[in-house]
Amino acid sequence: MNGALVRELYEKIDTFPIVDIHTHVQWKTPAARDIGQILSYHYYTELANSAELQREPFPLDDTAELTRVILPRLAPLRHTVQYDWLMTISRELLGLGAEEWEPENWQYIYDRSLEVMDRPEWREELIAQCNLAKVLLTNQYDEDLDGIDSSFYVPCLRTEPFVVGVEDPREREALGAFLGRAIRTPQDLDAALDKAFQRFVAHGMGYAALSSPANLVTAYVGQDEAQRLLDRLVAGERLAGEDQRAWRAYAISRVCEACRRYGKPYHLMIGVDRGVYAQGVPSGRDLFDSVNSLRGYDYLFNTYWDVRFPTSALSDTSGLELTAAAWIRHNVYPSGHWWYTNQPTDMAREIRRRLDVVPANKLIGYYSDAYYLEFILPKFRMYRFELALALAERMERSLIHPNMEPFMLDDALEVAEDLLLANPARIIGLGEA
Amino acid sequence: MNGALVRELYEKIDTFPIVDIHTHVQWKTPAARDIGQILSYHYYTELANSAELQREPFPLDDTAELTRVILPRLAPLRHTVQYDWLMTISRELLGLGAEEWEPENWQYIYDRSLEVMDRPEWREELIAQCNLAKVLLTNQYDEDLDGIDSSFYVPCLRTEPFVVGVEDPREREALGAFLGRAIRTPQDLDAALDKAFQRFVAHGMGYAALSSPANLVTAYVGQDEAQRLLDRLVAGERLAGEDQRAWRAYAISRVCEACRRYGKPYHLMIGVDRGVYAQGVPSGRDLFDSVNSLRGYDYLFNTYWDVRFPTSALSDTSGLELTAAAWIRHNVYPSGHWWYTNQPTDMAREIRRRLDVVPANKLIGYYSDAYYLEFILPKFRMYRFELALALAERMERSLIHPNMEPFMLDDALEVAEDLLLANPARIIGLGEA
Amino acid sequence: MNGALVRELYEKIDTFPIVDIHTHVQWKTPAARDIGQILSYHYYTELANSAELQREPFPLDDTAELTRVILPRLAPLRHTVQYDWLMTISRELLGLGAEEWEPENWQYIYDRSLEVMDRPEWREELIAQCNLAKVLLTNQYDEDLDGIDSSFYVPCLRTEPFVVGVEDPREREALGAFLGRAIRTPQDLDAALDKAFQRFVAHGMGYAALSSPANLVTAYVGQDEAQRLLDRLVAGERLAGEDQRAWRAYAISRVCEACRRYGKPYHLMIGVDRGVYAQGVPSGRDLFDSVNSLRGYDYLFNTYWDVRFPTSALSDTSGLELTAAAWIRHNVYPSGHWWYTNQPTDMAREIRRRLDVVPANKLIGYYSDAYYLEFILPKFRMYRFELALALAERMERSLIHPNMEPFMLDDALEVAEDLLLANPARIIGLGEA
Repeated sequence: MNGALVRELYEKIDTFPIVDIHTHVQWKTPAARDIGQILSYHYYTELANSAELQREPFPLDDTAELTRVILPRLAPLRHTVQYDWLMTISRELLGLGAEEWEPENWQYIYDRSLEVMDRPEWREELIAQCNLAKVLLTNQYDEDLDGIDSSFYVPCLRTEPFVVGVEDPREREALGAFLGRAIRTPQDLDAALDKAFQRFVAHGMGYAALSSPANLVTAYVGQDEAQRLLDRLVAGERLAGEDQRAWRAYAISRVCEACRRYGKPYHLMIGVDRGVYAQGVPSGRDLFDSVNSLRGYDYLFNTYWDVRFPTSALSDTSGLELTAAAWIRHNVYPSGHWWYTNQPTDMAREIRRRLDVVPANKLIGYYSDAYYLEFILPKFRMYRFELALALAERMERSLIHPNMEPFMLDDALEVAEDLLLANPARIIGLGEA
Repeated sequence: MNGALVRELYEKIDTFPIVDIHTHVQWKTPAARDIGQILSYHYYTELANSAELQREPFPLDDTAELTRVILPRLAPLRHTVQYDWLMTISRELLGLGAEEWEPENWQYIYDRSLEVMDRPEWREELIAQCNLAKVLLTNQYDEDLDGIDSSFYVPCLRTEPFVVGVEDPREREALGAFLGRAIRTPQDLDAALDKAFQRFVAHGMGYAALSSPANLVTAYVGQDEAQRLLDRLVAGERLAGEDQRAWRAYAISRVCEACRRYGKPYHLMIGVDRGVYAQGVPSGRDLFDSVNSLRGYDYLFNTYWDVRFPTSALSDTSGLELTAAAWIRHNVYPSGHWWYTNQPTDMAREIRRRLDVVPANKLIGYYSDAYYLEFILPKFRMYRFELALALAERMERSLIHPNMEPFMLDDALEVAEDLLLANPARIIGLGEA
Repeated sequence: MNGALVRELYEKIDTFPIVDIHTHVQWKTPAARDIGQILSYHYYTELANSAELQREPFPLDDTAELTRVILPRLAPLRHTVQYDWLMTISRELLGLGAEEWEPENWQYIYDRSLEVMDRPEWREELIAQCNLAKVLLTNQYDEDLDGIDSSFYVPCLRTEPFVVGVEDPREREALGAFLGRAIRTPQDLDAALDKAFQRFVAHGMGYAALSSPANLVTAYVGQDEAQRLLDRLVAGERLAGEDQRAWRAYAISRVCEACRRYGKPYHLMIGVDRGVYAQGVPSGRDLFDSVNSLRGYDYLFNTYWDVRFPTSALSDTSGLELTAAAWIRHNVYPSGHWWYTNQPTDMAREIRRRLDVVPANKLIGYYSDAYYLEFILPKFRMYRFELALALAERMERSLIHPNMEPFMLDDALEVAEDLLLANPARIIGLGEA
């Protein structure tokens, strides 16, 4: 590692404003109010629970108490990247050094966090300090978007309610309430999608999004078949096996049709197995399956050739499959590094793979997946450091590589800008917002 | 990276003549006639199509026009290894620097390429300049081999026609025409194989080859069962599911029998899914499946214990499985780095794995998979650089590693020579040619 | 690579005593008697067989002859890590430099080895020289443990006889003989397990252990169903498919119940396919499947939430899945680097992954899997070197990483001590022994 060069590159990349194309930030309460909210992020509760089983639920609603409870349990996490994120928040946003993070200091840390974060001007200071330019959200179809500052927040439509949700009577009923009539026919589903897209487009919609289980298979399913499946759902039956697969394949296609009509991308996040860990904390119960074929998306990518599919895969074993898909398919765009692959080791490999063989205009470098704005900066720094490392390595290789033209600092920064700014804007169409 | 050491190693390795054990070079027209033919290689058309969908087919038959059309579309590929290959061809074979590659220069580049390449002496100059010693081909069973210079070109028999092709009436008919009687019985298949092997052996045959889909399962299938399946094919039925698997397993075994009889290796290229991308350019429609078990080859490797199987796997997820197979199995030889794994990131990992645990006499370092002789040099350089890097790293580790004896420059070069020259010659039997 | 720093770190880590949590050492004859026994280890016979097929069985019972036969066949293995282990044994334990390892020297090497190893004091000298503190064994339920020095050797119970063995009449009979009555009911199985655990606990039991095939699925199976399956076995039937899966799932659960009762961990070694290579040497016939989902263990991990599961996976494709499981699950502990992943390339990746995201108190760094005490030192050195490299890299990153606090030599050594000493002791409960 050429430390000086990495640092030089990193520092230049770190001056870029942040465009964060996938978060779970709530636009009305985007920033944490205190350090307890930061610690309530599942990355900390799940690691504390992993280090030592938490028999009683964590006091997630009492952030002071949560701070008191979590602090002594952070010791075994000190060498994790998740802890590093926390320290960056502490050091740079709260002005508290890592040495303060001792259990007996919990009240001091909590009070200090309130002092900083619980001020009306905090949100704007935070945005300025972190140089955040645009934050994309993940929104429910009926979520209140009135008054959203769409020059900064970009709403993106969760499509699970239209795909998986319809199978659940309560969720289907809610969707019917949103539409103004019960969901009884494929046309009703289309109408609900249409209404949602219209609402979102009116507020500067980014894209539609779906997180899907391992080995999902998309396929053509006709309207008659869809009607038959919907009839069974309405009759109170539960779908399973092939029927469930058929319904979901149908519904996903209808989302694609809407994406096509409205010219919006469909962001796929592939491969999460929900709720598999019984003793997990909230949001800390999901894993993935290393056995995960992307072959199931061929139908979708081929049929909706005019829809852009920014795509993330949760399993490391899907990394080269995704790279290869983006290498030849015109409408697949590798997007960031999701969740369990969002750590230096797997990120480093995927960055290099993608840079080596995928057209540079197709790569979306990173998104934070953050729940609060505070997490965006440390997570982007983790990525930017790995990117700087990969680019520095490439610069050094180019000096002695028999096939490579010189790859200089400016070339490296151009690539970084493509990945972090130009591509997200163009692929998602943020210029339109 | 110890740049000086890598460079020193690379430069020594670069003096080796090239033995390229797998290409798609046409022996009668082995070199490109102009830069348009180079650009017609699917690596460029598919990347151009991936960077921006090409709605009309590329003008593949009009190489000047193709040059004009492709050139402006190369910009987003500038940081790919595929572009690096092109620049090496341009710089070293055509004498055109990378700075010339601007869209407005297309005619100049095209003309210059004609000037260099469209000369009768070009082929021999190219061979000399690139230090090519032996080029193995991929040939149809009935391809004209008369007059082939078998001191340089080594024909290798594509066996897909005997395995998959038999299922297709037209291909079966062609095979019958080659044999001199229709393919009606398992004996006819054997006779056709025999005739093909005889022809190839007479021209210095290298090996038989097969590229196979993900999760192929080999197994014993009796002659009666094979007759039954062939009868159905002859009767115009299409095989599917278990029947198709059984037929293919049978036919593959018969190829192995022929390999055994003639003492020739069977080169397996495992895991391609053909034609999955609908909007792809010619040869740019295939992908692979990360879910790919090599367990399906156990029968083959065990039963044909006296046949050598140089083996490539397309998926990164098969890399360690292949290494482990070569670690214990006497007749499995990891061969090169195929297609989607033919890039620095995955190559680097596999080189290290193989060197660490597989006997050094079992490794075939690299092949180019080239369509024109011009591609061999840049592709080998990509590999040789990664090999030099791995060997340099090993030299440096040996200085401080508690288990390792000193691994010096001469040791490194001996390993390189094994991988690039001695092993290919011995494993494939090129000395016999 | 910062060679000086790696070496400094390595040398400090190398002063740690060795706690080896998984071996196949025989406690009555733990050390080799001569170099032929060392060479009889399947790592050497299988590599010799892989480099060149051995048609006659190796003379495993005549260690002088084996030495003579194997020595000339080591040349192609010279660059493997397995050969490096041998050289460390030769250099440091026998005082023979690598240059002595020439075929014509076989008698000299053999004699010298006898001279050193075939002395009564050898075992203790070896333990002292290698700084071995504790060696965990793999024992059959009825193995003689009387007189075992349980301050040094820790017996661990192989549970295959209770899971897979019961399906085999002879093994079932042996288990009945151990219990004192035939195995006819689920209660008999429990009683046999209980008797075995009691014996082992009386001798300082470490844990129960299981090596399992790829894609094992655990699940709830009721006692009535188990009785029905056992009845069929007793009636002489063979179980297959779903029935076999159900029986194994049942039996594994019963082992977990015993682990729970006795407060002992269950060490899982996941993903070996036994006996797949027909021409393999003894213990050199097993491979793994890259298609291997850990999802099948969800039931076990959830249900036996109060049992600790140190877990190894044989396939590289399971690496991140195991890391992610340990990241959120409180009772899954990544344990070492098993067999085909026990080489620098895959080890390096897993070390980094685990350190980055799993609580530091959950990681068991390494075990040797050794058959003789002599192998422990070189194998641990291989790991310690990779660990030193990862920690040195982390130290260097911390100096320029925007999210990291300084990670100094003392921090690195603390992590190393956790992985190599503190965690194995606490997770397995070696303090109790």
